[in-house]
Amino acid sequence: MKHRIITIGREFGSGGRTIGREVAERLNIPCYDQELIEKLAEESGLSSDYIKNESEYASHSSWTAVAFSSVRSLGVPSNQDYLWAIQRKIILELGEKEDCVIVGRCADAILEDTADLLKVFIHADFASRSRRIVEKYGETEEPTEKRLRDKDKRRALYYQFYTDREWGAIDNYHVILDSGALGIEKCVDIIASLY
Amino acid sequence: MKHRIITIGREFGSGGRTIGREVAERLNIPCYDQELIEKLAEESGLSSDYIKNESEYASHSSWTAVAFSSVRSLGVPSNQDYLWAIQRKIILELGEKEDCVIVGRCADAILEDTADLLKVFIHADFASRSRRIVEKYGETEEPTEKRLRDKDKRRALYYQFYTDREWGAIDNYHVILDSGALGIEKCVDIIASLY
Repeated sequence: MKHRIITIGREFGSGGRTIGREVAERLNIPCYDQELIEKLAEESGLSSDYIKNESEYASHSSWTAVAFSSVRSLGVPSNQDYLWAIQRKIILELGEKEDCVIVGRCADAILEDTADLLKVFIHADFASRSRRIVEKYGETEEPTEKRLRDKDKRRALYYQFYTDREWGAIDNYHVILDSGALGIEKCVDIIASLY
Repeated sequence: MKHRIITIGREFGSGGRTIGREVAERLNIPCYDQELIEKLAEESGLSSDYIKNESEYASHSSWTAVAFSSVRSLGVPSNQDYLWAIQRKIILELGEKEDCVIVGRCADAILEDTADLLKVFIHADFASRSRRIVEKYGETEEPTEKRLRDKDKRRALYYQFYTDREWGAIDNYHVILDSGALGIEKCVDIIASLY
């Protein structure tokens, strides 16, 4: 029998990770996110810092440059591709192993055929997201709106590059919620009630 | 105090109208949809048949042609513009008058500033929608997929033309649900629980 897995895509600062953790806690199943980075690190033999720099989460990564570089066009896999392959393998294994919540990392596309998915996407207006990232990560020299746009652009590109789908396009998700308007708790309630 | 109004945008065949009616029944508030067409007809002095032909619901309307015709580019309002103005006025009056559900008709954009909105969008995969329109409206000579695409295209164009927003774009809605995957009843539960 296929495992029941909730995948959560999210705009930066929308509280998607918090929602994922709270849903998992409510349902008493594991939530994979930071844990996944650590698993990735172990399996690849690379340091967790290195992975953070190369992953979709990198704040100044050269990933977008790498994605379209001339090296890649020659068919040579990048470090990013290597990480993607490892990450994909881990997510497929999770899909075989247990019911869980997986935040980000294209898990919706990776597990489409092998798990019973509830595909969620969380978004919010700029004002709510700005407040949230300043609370969580503090101010930086970069304007908040630019931080949000850059991170979202990177996530969208990453998702599209590896899945050939459009990030945040309605057809890819079963439930799309505005956490700014509804609040984190209501989002958790809805997702848990659908499980 | 602003009235609490649920607006429901929907892909053709996704069951959005049924969901709107069931939510309204559950909450014991009115649902405006077909009723709105009739109100339109009374107020404009035009026959209900005429309105059906000119509205977003027209199956072979010349609306898209009219929208971009040379007449309109000279600033001459079309019949469609006239209907839009009447419809907008009725929706604004509903927003002043009572809590309710309004299906379609750009009500989300029209009432943005004057009501307390819960903005919902319903979509579904082609297979579910095809089954639904054949059940509800029967077969026609036109292939089902073409009927779906044409109607959605018309709705998207209508919405964009009159609101300057993108129909079905996630930022415009608080809750977006896949009625094909979740089922009509679950959608009704979620929307009613958020009211």
